[in-house]
Amino acid sequence: MASNYPQETSAATALLPGSLVHQRREAVAANTLLCQLDILKKTGRYDCFNLKWHPVYSRAPEVWPVPDHLFWDSDVAKWIEGACYLLHDHPHPKIDASIHELVGLIRSAQQPDGYLNLHYTMVEPGKRFTNLRDMHELYNAGHMIEAALAHQHLYKNDMLMDPILKYVDLLHKTFGPGEDQIHGYPGHPEIELALIRLYNRTQNPKHLELASYFIHERGNPTGVKGEHYYDVELRARGDDPYKRPSYHTEVGGCKWYYSAHKPIIEQETVEGHSVRAMYLLTAAADLTRVSSGKASNDLRKATYRLWNNMTQRKMYVTGGIGAVKQYEGFGRDFFLPQGTDEGGCYAETCASIGAMMLAQRILQYDLDSRYSDVMELCLYNAVLTVMSHDGTAFTYVNQLASSDADPAKRSDWFTVACCPPNTLRLLGSIGGYIYSDDSSNGTTSVNVHLYIPSKHTFNLEGQEYTLTQKSNYPWNGAITFTLDRSPETGLSLRLRIPSFAKAHWHLDPPLPSTPEIQKGYLHIPSSYLAALPNQSFTLSLPVTPRLITPHPYATNSNTLTLARGPIIYCVEDVDNPWVTDHFKSVRLDPACLDRVREEDVRDERTGDVYTGLTVVEGARVLDVERAEGEMMGMPFLEVGKSGREAGVNGVNGVNGTHSADFDGLKTKTIEELRFVPFYFRANRGGRGHSRVGIDRWDQC
Amino acid sequence: MASNYPQETSAATALLPGSLVHQRREAVAANTLLCQLDILKKTGRYDCFNLKWHPVYSRAPEVWPVPDHLFWDSDVAKWIEGACYLLHDHPHPKIDASIHELVGLIRSAQQPDGYLNLHYTMVEPGKRFTNLRDMHELYNAGHMIEAALAHQHLYKNDMLMDPILKYVDLLHKTFGPGEDQIHGYPGHPEIELALIRLYNRTQNPKHLELASYFIHERGNPTGVKGEHYYDVELRARGDDPYKRPSYHTEVGGCKWYYSAHKPIIEQETVEGHSVRAMYLLTAAADLTRVSSGKASNDLRKATYRLWNNMTQRKMYVTGGIGAVKQYEGFGRDFFLPQGTDEGGCYAETCASIGAMMLAQRILQYDLDSRYSDVMELCLYNAVLTVMSHDGTAFTYVNQLASSDADPAKRSDWFTVACCPPNTLRLLGSIGGYIYSDDSSNGTTSVNVHLYIPSKHTFNLEGQEYTLTQKSNYPWNGAITFTLDRSPETGLSLRLRIPSFAKAHWHLDPPLPSTPEIQKGYLHIPSSYLAALPNQSFTLSLPVTPRLITPHPYATNSNTLTLARGPIIYCVEDVDNPWVTDHFKSVRLDPACLDRVREEDVRDERTGDVYTGLTVVEGARVLDVERAEGEMMGMPFLEVGKSGREAGVNGVNGVNGTHSADFDGLKTKTIEELRFVPFYFRANRGGRGHSRVGIDRWDQC
Repeated sequence: MASNYPQETSAATALLPGSLVHQRREAVAANTLLCQLDILKKTGRYDCFNLKWHPVYSRAPEVWPVPDHLFWDSDVAKWIEGACYLLHDHPHPKIDASIHELVGLIRSAQQPDGYLNLHYTMVEPGKRFTNLRDMHELYNAGHMIEAALAHQHLYKNDMLMDPILKYVDLLHKTFGPGEDQIHGYPGHPEIELALIRLYNRTQNPKHLELASYFIHERGNPTGVKGEHYYDVELRARGDDPYKRPSYHTEVGGCKWYYSAHKPIIEQETVEGHSVRAMYLLTAAADLTRVSSGKASNDLRKATYRLWNNMTQRKMYVTGGIGAVKQYEGFGRDFFLPQGTDEGGCYAETCASIGAMMLAQRILQYDLDSRYSDVMELCLYNAVLTVMSHDGTAFTYVNQLASSDADPAKRSDWFTVACCPPNTLRLLGSIGGYIYSDDSSNGTTSVNVHLYIPSKHTFNLEGQEYTLTQKSNYPWNGAITFTLDRSPETGLSLRLRIPSFAKAHWHLDPPLPSTPEIQKGYLHIPSSYLAALPNQSFTLSLPVTPRLITPHPYATNSNTLTLARGPIIYCVEDVDNPWVTDHFKSVRLDPACLDRVREEDVRDERTGDVYTGLTVVEGARVLDVERAEGEMMGMPFLEVGKSGREAGVNGVNGVNGTHSADFDGLKTKTIEELRFVPFYFRANRGGRGHSRVGIDRWDQC
Repeated sequence: MASNYPQETSAATALLPGSLVHQRREAVAANTLLCQLDILKKTGRYDCFNLKWHPVYSRAPEVWPVPDHLFWDSDVAKWIEGACYLLHDHPHPKIDASIHELVGLIRSAQQPDGYLNLHYTMVEPGKRFTNLRDMHELYNAGHMIEAALAHQHLYKNDMLMDPILKYVDLLHKTFGPGEDQIHGYPGHPEIELALIRLYNRTQNPKHLELASYFIHERGNPTGVKGEHYYDVELRARGDDPYKRPSYHTEVGGCKWYYSAHKPIIEQETVEGHSVRAMYLLTAAADLTRVSSGKASNDLRKATYRLWNNMTQRKMYVTGGIGAVKQYEGFGRDFFLPQGTDEGGCYAETCASIGAMMLAQRILQYDLDSRYSDVMELCLYNAVLTVMSHDGTAFTYVNQLASSDADPAKRSDWFTVACCPPNTLRLLGSIGGYIYSDDSSNGTTSVNVHLYIPSKHTFNLEGQEYTLTQKSNYPWNGAITFTLDRSPETGLSLRLRIPSFAKAHWHLDPPLPSTPEIQKGYLHIPSSYLAALPNQSFTLSLPVTPRLITPHPYATNSNTLTLARGPIIYCVEDVDNPWVTDHFKSVRLDPACLDRVREEDVRDERTGDVYTGLTVVEGARVLDVERAEGEMMGMPFLEVGKSGREAGVNGVNGVNGTHSADFDGLKTKTIEELRFVPFYFRANRGGRGHSRVGIDRWDQC
């Protein structure tokens, strides 16, 4: 069966050198893979499937009730999976050998009945499946399935797939609606999306059945004799309901944290832990593609509803999701504080990778640029910002504004080490996100979702074609497509017109007739392709500076963000060394858009190339240090007490020339406010002051 | 010994009819007192000291581990206390009889060793003093002391004081630094401030000693054999550290919630539960007045530091404190969301009453209007807003903006019933907040902190004088003071010049020499008073509409609030019936100050009189319903896409004439945006849409 999964289709796409994404993928292949292998070894993860005792097993968990080693299975699995994607075009004997060894260890750790989980084999034998809600048992299983799929795809053998299929068999027997089965589902979704991919490979209906059970049973308020499964499970294991994991904000089980407060089809808003929600919806969307009937339709409607709620009310301008740190998840509609000082901002990388996965799944049945626009937004901003230019340092959360409590800095590794290997997996398979091919009845439509220089191989009527796209995107909007030979009549292309380019794109040579754009995709008909000189044409997108702002109801609605093409910009102290307050006292005038200077930058330290933006005399800094004096002991300032004044010295270090009053505070023009792409933050030292959305003042 | 406590000095001040405060105090005397008595009876509180079993004792607590009846002692005590203040000038045989009966019940409930607490007598005998942190045992004791003080003051007998002194004796034996004493202190402060007042009455050094121990020992990291008392206490009672009360945001005891994360003298910022913090600081400030030495000096410094942190970074423009609902307390510096939708806002009435108490204590040794300004701000806004005009309906939290989740509505009573009786106590003793007298060496300075029509009796060299102040303040700024006879040379007055009046007050007749203003108090010398025709003069304060805004770092810094004199205004749907989104889409131009219409209103339904404000064509409403369409699936809007446009119909129900674009959204001028005093909200029906700070747009 043809696959639509980027983890598999990526093999048909080779990135070409020169682009940002290519550079980051190369860095991952050259550095991250080995660096993570090293960490797997140092921390005990590499060896853990030898089933020897490790001191960590007796340690009190940092986040009760989750033992520190609980994710180790998945850490190993994700590394194997990501490595397999990269080995495809970056052969590496040492990595190869390590995968071989790890697979052997995993095989040896499997229990006779197929069970395969480190914690419940080593630390709590006999207690398997007693805390589906918190113990990541099925989450780990999901990642094992994904590793097996990648391993089988690359090595064309079943060394990892065999034990995993045996484990899945056990799970299929264990979970389901039968009287002697457990009516439960994982607290952290992941196995659902893995099972549907497995079904695509195996065509074994059991695999789809188990995924479907987990998805549809989730949140059933009367799943076990009139009660919610998680309530029954908690009582069965004798837990005190007042013992709360630290990620529970309230007593009562916080079922919304697990997206299990009600059945998915009844959910109106996306809630809880954002990675869990994304993994769950990715599986739900995919399930509706391979199933039919009322339940499937309702599920698809719910997926759309929750997507819309997320992108319109719960997503940062960077594509980041998850405003609340305590539970790593969504706040209420429009609650989008930019940083710790403002009440939160988590925007975990894995969550935005999840949003990309969800968008990719929906695009398989609904080719609409609203999904691929967000996919691109997430990739260039919320996701790429996770790693340093060389792939050796990472962020876990991607706040839009730093604070003294949480400066913008990178670390090498994390106790909960999900994001770096997830980035490995994503960049390993990124080729599969660029294109998708729809073939039927002798026609093929190649859909281009992302503009990343690459060669894409596809089939039309049994013939292999190569489509090459070249550009300096996202810095320059001219993208040239070339087919390796003149195509048959059955070929068409569909090119995403990004929302920022809606009215201003053009094609060279132009289309002979009125362009047909459906749901944001420009249709390039076969007649146009057949008539091309050199099988080549150029799409030009207007890549110019833009100002964007969140929904007027959002908590950060008063901020202006500078963007250019798909790139979201931020300010950093390294370029604006006078800043001492995380840019809290800077005010930006929307009229500044006329005063944005663009320049090509090649950063010396990192070698990174990007377009830098500078706002020239379009921003002011308030003399906030004087505010508390002006407040005269009251909790507020008087507004509009005086007009503009000239010639007053305000803030140290700002080379300003004019001054004006802002609610009785002196202000000073910032001659040059320098912006860099958000993904590039925290790459060049500095003091960790950074901000995306700048407070707006329409009178700078 | 002379008392400086408003609970006692209020007897020397009689409010005159006609003012807002007088009307509310009369409402409390006429309705609230009886209505609360009725509730005490209905719920079982009235009878509880008869020590019969009540079904509530066996009920699972709504907020574990706090049993629903845990505050009953204090509910009764606060009612007795408040009633005693009002009986002073509102004799009432039924109330009188009830107090008599309750005192008898309380006496009968005392244990032979002096112990007096409902819960540990009825429900958990033998466990007294095992959970000082959460069980409100000493908090209840504090309110009993305050009730006894009020009772003794009114009735001039010791019927309640006797048993309470016996209980305090037991507490003094139980708590302290001795080897056989408990080194603990209450999770909810209250007893400290009560003990210092008790000491003022009894002059028994034990009473001061116990208060001082509780205050200075608090937060000691090594209080019990190198450990924090609360950690030791938890272990001693065998509690699981992962069992968290719902008000704990994290594992580890949340000592900051109790203002016990470090000794008070080391605290840099005011943290945790805001009522607890205020009660504690009230006691701390008072302790520094009656003690000396380094510890006392350090404590005074800490009190100033925490006051400044609170008023400059953690207080709403209404005088409300406590941004976070989960733990009813302070957020980080500058975290001041206006409502649930924006991430919080609690602003509990009791907390602002606590801030008034703290201000009143500091004013006894530091006559500075920064304290009395905040005292006035709290009174007219955060406090008076708690009750309906007739004193029968209440709010518990005083959010600055409503939301669908939390509309602006009043309720009759609360399970945790602290605010209504606290309001009773405050209004009962409000006369004591208006004036304070400083007498020494044959001179008396009468300090006027609040402008509320009243007669104040004071002594000068053994002679009784009466100072009468009359005004229509806060609606009109002319305040006339009259002495009942020409004074001796030793009399002077000190009149607070509110911060809003700093440069624009005047006195009639004028002072003969340059006015002397010290720390915001205008000195009226005896020579001026002696020369007055009719012993009368008038202070005029500029009571005009003002616009205020929070600190530029605050989360709500983008909002403008309309104020007039000390009154903070809000908008309500009952006056602006077109609103459907809690005024989230309204934008206010700072230039609107020139277009504010003032009018005297006599509300027909309530009989309330106030100055209403209307902004005429100074605000706009955005067509937010279209925002999600304009967002084109992305999580943001484009800014500055087009200029102003004319003649577009925007929002239903707004009688606008002009239109302009705001980030691509149509807007419409609001012809009349009507404001009412914040304290008056939720008095006239409506749908519960209300807002104080309106989003700012400098181009309406």
